Amino acid sequence: MTPIGFVESPLTDRDSAPRQGDEGAPEAVLRFEPSVADGLRDLVPGTDVLVLTWLDRADRDVLVVHPRGDLSRPPTGVFSTRSPDRPNPVGLHRVVIIAIEGLTMRVRDLEALDGTPVLDLKPVLGDER
Amino acid sequence: MTPIGFVESPLTDRDSAPRQGDEGAPEAVLRFEPSVADGLRDLVPGTDVLVLTWLDRADRDVLVVHPRGDLSRPPTGVFSTRSPDRPNPVGLHRVVIIAIEGLTMRVRDLEALDGTPVLDLKPVLGDER
Repeated sequence: MTPIGFVESPLTDRDSAPRQGDEGAPEAVLRFEPSVADGLRDLVPGTDVLVLTWLDRADRDVLVVHPRGDLSRPPTGVFSTRSPDRPNPVGLHRVVIIAIEGLTMRVRDLEALDGTPVLDLKPVLGDER
Repeated sequence: MTPIGFVESPLTDRDSAPRQGDEGAPEAVLRFEPSVADGLRDLVPGTDVLVLTWLDRADRDVLVVHPRGDLSRPPTGVFSTRSPDRPNPVGLHRVVIIAIEGLTMRVRDLEALDGTPVLDLKPVLGDER
């Protein structure tokens, strides 16, 4: 795994970050590596895209969680949840592209923390290209 | 990245595999590592789940492709496509769980090749748990 870029976000603290991007995440910036510039060339502002990240502050030894950290909910296997704590903490985020300028992309609805490595971008499921 | 399991599938050849799981992929089996058994415990047959894989036969140096290998389509940046060839070839597959028995899960609509490492399972986007 080689990051293709990194997240720049006002979110720096896991405890205060929203659990899903549509629950009040601020605008964020994706800053890409020059080596992947050609791969970005057809991305268009206004469209939705899936961002895959490496959740580098996750606990990879966790297999069972209380969903959304709510202790009143029964312990649940991580593969039935969106918990960042899991053996391979790959984050999957549906965001809206606000703007692209060179290697810098501004997005809405990204709950990843500042400094999170970006692994990949994909069209949303169901878009067949 | 440590695989949590591997794909067992009659698909062994990239050229003959369907490009999306709902385009005629055969049933496949996910064989999980004993170390992640606790994480699987709440998965239920009949439900949809996202499977993340590591597409180990992909070409990681590719940044521009003809979508779906169709030379009549204009060259497109890989981050606007589902091409397996891309810098970090993480496969994202929506499958239906047919059955689970211990560490073995039978699924429908998985176009990944036999032997592909499995990285993660997640609820489908929009399912909030």
